[in-house]
Amino acid sequence: MKMETTSSQSGQAAANEAHASPKALAALFTPQSIAIIGATEKEGAVGRTVVENLQIIQFHGPIYPVNPKRDTILGLKAYPSIGAIGQPVDVAVIITPPKTVPSVMSECVNARVKFAIVISAGFKEAGPAGLELEQQVVNEARRGGVRFIGPNCLGVVNMHANVNASFAPSIPPAGKISVISQSGALCVAILDWATSCGLGLSKVVSFGNKADLNEVDFLRAFAEDPDTNVVAAYLESITEGDRFLEVAEEIASVKPVVVLKVGVTQAGAKAASSHTGSLAGADMAYWAAFKRSGVIRAEDFEALFDYALAFATQPLPKGNRLAIVTNAGGPGIMAADAAELSGLRLLPPKDSTRDKLRQVLPPTAATGNPIDVIGDAEPDRYINTLKLIQDDENIDGILVVVTPQNMTAPLELAKQLHATHNRKRPLLTAFMGGKEIIQAKDFLMQVGIPNYPSPTRAVAAFKAMSDYAAWRVRPPRVVTRFPVNRRRVDRVIQWQMRSDIQQVGEVEAKEILRAYDFNVLDGFLARTPGEAVDAAERIGYPVVLKISSPDIIHKSDFGGVRINLANAEQVRDAFDLMMLRVQRRAPKAFIRGAFVEKMGSKGREVILGMTRDPQFGPMLMFGLGGIFVEVMKDVTFYLAPITATEAMQMLKGTRSYALLQGARGQAPVDLDAIASALQRISQLATDYPQIMELDINPFIVGEVGTEAYVADARMTLAKLHA
Amino acid sequence: MKMETTSSQSGQAAANEAHASPKALAALFTPQSIAIIGATEKEGAVGRTVVENLQIIQFHGPIYPVNPKRDTILGLKAYPSIGAIGQPVDVAVIITPPKTVPSVMSECVNARVKFAIVISAGFKEAGPAGLELEQQVVNEARRGGVRFIGPNCLGVVNMHANVNASFAPSIPPAGKISVISQSGALCVAILDWATSCGLGLSKVVSFGNKADLNEVDFLRAFAEDPDTNVVAAYLESITEGDRFLEVAEEIASVKPVVVLKVGVTQAGAKAASSHTGSLAGADMAYWAAFKRSGVIRAEDFEALFDYALAFATQPLPKGNRLAIVTNAGGPGIMAADAAELSGLRLLPPKDSTRDKLRQVLPPTAATGNPIDVIGDAEPDRYINTLKLIQDDENIDGILVVVTPQNMTAPLELAKQLHATHNRKRPLLTAFMGGKEIIQAKDFLMQVGIPNYPSPTRAVAAFKAMSDYAAWRVRPPRVVTRFPVNRRRVDRVIQWQMRSDIQQVGEVEAKEILRAYDFNVLDGFLARTPGEAVDAAERIGYPVVLKISSPDIIHKSDFGGVRINLANAEQVRDAFDLMMLRVQRRAPKAFIRGAFVEKMGSKGREVILGMTRDPQFGPMLMFGLGGIFVEVMKDVTFYLAPITATEAMQMLKGTRSYALLQGARGQAPVDLDAIASALQRISQLATDYPQIMELDINPFIVGEVGTEAYVADARMTLAKLHA
Repeated sequence: MKMETTSSQSGQAAANEAHASPKALAALFTPQSIAIIGATEKEGAVGRTVVENLQIIQFHGPIYPVNPKRDTILGLKAYPSIGAIGQPVDVAVIITPPKTVPSVMSECVNARVKFAIVISAGFKEAGPAGLELEQQVVNEARRGGVRFIGPNCLGVVNMHANVNASFAPSIPPAGKISVISQSGALCVAILDWATSCGLGLSKVVSFGNKADLNEVDFLRAFAEDPDTNVVAAYLESITEGDRFLEVAEEIASVKPVVVLKVGVTQAGAKAASSHTGSLAGADMAYWAAFKRSGVIRAEDFEALFDYALAFATQPLPKGNRLAIVTNAGGPGIMAADAAELSGLRLLPPKDSTRDKLRQVLPPTAATGNPIDVIGDAEPDRYINTLKLIQDDENIDGILVVVTPQNMTAPLELAKQLHATHNRKRPLLTAFMGGKEIIQAKDFLMQVGIPNYPSPTRAVAAFKAMSDYAAWRVRPPRVVTRFPVNRRRVDRVIQWQMRSDIQQVGEVEAKEILRAYDFNVLDGFLARTPGEAVDAAERIGYPVVLKISSPDIIHKSDFGGVRINLANAEQVRDAFDLMMLRVQRRAPKAFIRGAFVEKMGSKGREVILGMTRDPQFGPMLMFGLGGIFVEVMKDVTFYLAPITATEAMQMLKGTRSYALLQGARGQAPVDLDAIASALQRISQLATDYPQIMELDINPFIVGEVGTEAYVADARMTLAKLHA
Repeated sequence: MKMETTSSQSGQAAANEAHASPKALAALFTPQSIAIIGATEKEGAVGRTVVENLQIIQFHGPIYPVNPKRDTILGLKAYPSIGAIGQPVDVAVIITPPKTVPSVMSECVNARVKFAIVISAGFKEAGPAGLELEQQVVNEARRGGVRFIGPNCLGVVNMHANVNASFAPSIPPAGKISVISQSGALCVAILDWATSCGLGLSKVVSFGNKADLNEVDFLRAFAEDPDTNVVAAYLESITEGDRFLEVAEEIASVKPVVVLKVGVTQAGAKAASSHTGSLAGADMAYWAAFKRSGVIRAEDFEALFDYALAFATQPLPKGNRLAIVTNAGGPGIMAADAAELSGLRLLPPKDSTRDKLRQVLPPTAATGNPIDVIGDAEPDRYINTLKLIQDDENIDGILVVVTPQNMTAPLELAKQLHATHNRKRPLLTAFMGGKEIIQAKDFLMQVGIPNYPSPTRAVAAFKAMSDYAAWRVRPPRVVTRFPVNRRRVDRVIQWQMRSDIQQVGEVEAKEILRAYDFNVLDGFLARTPGEAVDAAERIGYPVVLKISSPDIIHKSDFGGVRINLANAEQVRDAFDLMMLRVQRRAPKAFIRGAFVEKMGSKGREVILGMTRDPQFGPMLMFGLGGIFVEVMKDVTFYLAPITATEAMQMLKGTRSYALLQGARGQAPVDLDAIASALQRISQLATDYPQIMELDINPFIVGEVGTEAYVADARMTLAKLHA
């Protein structure tokens, strides 16, 4: 077996060709003609609603209802089959009973339809028979190169091209936010809600079971779409983790992608699997993937559109310093609380700005942050303040909080805010109240100033903006490659795999790590007390004795670890006692012998690990040893490969980081040694996809100048013929 | 100085007499007549708005505008002064310039006005001169027994008695939620918002600077008010912590109190102090106070009314098991995620219920939890499900999630839900969308089924309900009193206070703790090496030597701790060396000598502490020693006096609790010993209000059967003439 470098980026080009290129999706979103297979006049039927929707939105191309039993449908000529149309069909919407869909798809192929939207349900989500049926549909489509959405979906809407190829009744105004949703029902609710509050949307796709086209295809398409400047995505699962990472990072580099990923808890994931037939990925891996690829994660449904709205309408901030302007103390404090809790900074304006503010505001006003223009403020006080602070260098974004007081004139204020804002920094508002502010709210939505019902939600939106802006200017990711000895690793892994042993024990794991330049204490395997003493004499006392068995993972639980053995007699006694005890406690374990190792110096115990996520591949873990991982769950996860900066972020991401820096009068530990170790694990995991799991537990690290070392390690390999 | 038991409950009766009794506030909320001092016809003036508001709401008693320059105002006879009215006045609204308010208040006193509402601003919030003016107003009012709201407030609204003695323009329908707000501006926004969404309110009070009547007075009034079944409060500070605790617990025992307390962060608190002139209390103390008194804390503005609405309309649940019914998988998962994250339980219905559900739902429906009635559900499927689960013993509350699909018929569904719900368990809904659900939403508001724009917010409301319900059935709080030797404590404290020494050093602190039955290792103060050796011989080797000085708190930083001294020579050497080093490092410190103590057994280090919050009095702290407190900030706070149950909750409230239970193969420590120690500190802090701070750091606790002991302790006393 020859080993080749396999990074998460390699081999993508070939894979991508199997997918629709962005331009190729053009005919799906802006079709010249649409057929509806399963069209009907029956009241309340989806096959009627889709035809009506296309009529209502005034789709400008021909609409071809297909129904063998009818001559016309809703005033349109009906066709007995897709083949009978005799004209080019860009999109065929399929709404026939599930069993008929494979043959309908076959007919679409023969009729050279470009795209199909399979609205019909009763496939993967309905159990094994449905899955089988879905596979038949895929096979038919692949045969003729028809790409399709669904099955079990709502359809596609494009507000910019008069397309409503869905059974959603409400269509919002045209805007710049494109939406993808794994739930059709949610999509209906989103469209309806956007319509009622006047939120402009661009393209809306419900992709259902995503048997063919999936989230990645749409993200790619939206990256190049001039009508889309933000993507809001509702996801229950991600189908192709590696492509998602690549494409998401690509699009996030040009426009924001906000994702609501549900199924984060056990209960949620259970509901997901019973619902969509898709297993929800581990939430940790999703966090890591989103962090890597610059995807903004929304915590809940409201946040999804709160954030999307801010991104769609406002320039990105250059930093995380928010200025709060308010006419009411209380809501100002709410905003300040939320800002501070989320890690934003609240600086007062520059002194020169404050001097000017004092001239335009009454003496009782506060000119720090929040800036309180006082309850009797007419619009001019807000406007004078905005004029002064919108160029202030202490400020990256502005939140205007408004309660409807006697002098407030909310609509007039909204208009003047819009007229005054120079758009150098993002402007968000929280007009609070009901009918007094409704006109202002509508106006703000129209002109693209994001307004929120509470200061807290506005602050969260600015936080999302500043996080994303920071990601956008991140330094280029340069993954260091360390010189390593792959031949040695190959040898160990080949031996293990030939023997079909998945568990890599301490001895072999250390052998592999040594080849990746880890410092591993000298040690030898001893099969007899005599060999153990010989080994100890060679190494020098004191030594440690550890059981070596592929069947025993938690050595100390079986009496399989003895430390600080100072002479030959102690080594001999320890060896005999260990074999006696281990054989008694684990009679079936295969015992190779005992590993004799130099007694290491003391230091801080940390745990370095790697696990391979089914979606996103190798994921690295870092945590402080012992209770910090086991009790406090104080760990960070990053996807491999990591950079030096990311390795250091993994350390800083733990709550216990201060301990590494030397809390309580202790000297700081060698942080670079840990960061370097994480990078080398990253390289190992990328180089050897056979390694499914890896644990260095503990990795001992002392002060700068001492040598950090692997005290214990184990790995798990993939099954050869799984 | 004679020491008497001083619990937080004692001495309240006398204090309360100074405050308005609940019934006495009747004339404020349902006045027979109202005078407006500072009434005017000037457009936009508050003095005009208040008169108009009373006219618009059709106040049924006489309205007396007071303005010496006018004969009539807005068609009403105007009076030159309050005294000139010649009729009984229940409420006088004062809107005159701040400087005139003391004399106006004096006139109110002379005219035997019962209550005043001082809307005028320019008092405490405007600086020292304003504070002085405010005090004059208070003095005038006290002189004649006039109770008043404000200054710097919006006024009072009572929807049930046609009273709008405020300048708020929007008046919502009459309902059962009473609102108190420290921010007038927020109050306006609340009234406006409630009006526009049809949320019924009862009494709304903006109390501004609360120079006289404050939140506690209103809570007491609302406790007995049949028109109030929930209180929603917006607070920036609490004026009388001990009364608040008592009254809040009293009212929370009969009806829920939801509080949005802002100023939780440094930035927020700074804004609070500059805004209202009131210092925001430490947030930890507020958390502890709310937990103790059963107050439900809302995390943000939307949560305040989300929770209030649920409480106002639905029965309390008996537990925390939520059933989710949905017609869409995605929003069902959102609800499940939110429920699990917040600690609610999601059980499937009983088997017998599930069998019946299968009969009324299609085969593809899910009958676990969430129950998915599938997108094509007409109302009957929801209704059949509700009928079956609303008596299920596995379920404490029901959340119905609805997306507007083809067959949904949201309004019809809402009507049938209302008709079907037997009100044995709370029913909450999340109808998602816009115009498709607007009628359903309005209907649900009218009939009192709380509806939320997202499943997440509905789940949070149910969580608040189940937490409050659990508090309502809490066992009675019985505070154990331990037999102690107060005479010994008196002696130490009297000596300290006579010497005007606030810092109580280790020796004296241990003396006090010993009197409260703490196990303290034997030890003696030695002033010479010879005395130290004598002491060591009496105690028995090995011993510990610690510097004794009121000026040195962190002993080990000054070389002031030596442990494990095994013989006379070591003790003598250690003593000399310690004196040498300490004198060199802290030349100005007063050195009493060295404390010779038995070397204690090993065990887990924990920290027990007490600090006295300015609002809420003694607050106990618990945390695991060392890094857990210092780095991980893993501590819990409870207000004294605590019960045995609460002491145990303090332990369980830390993230590191598992360590005490014996994680990683270690034996569990003696939890009761810690709980008992916390209770005895609680008693000490209650008995001796002179003790401002106390730290037992560390308290060493081993396995059950060993004796936990105080290894080090210190206290701080109040200044005698502070």
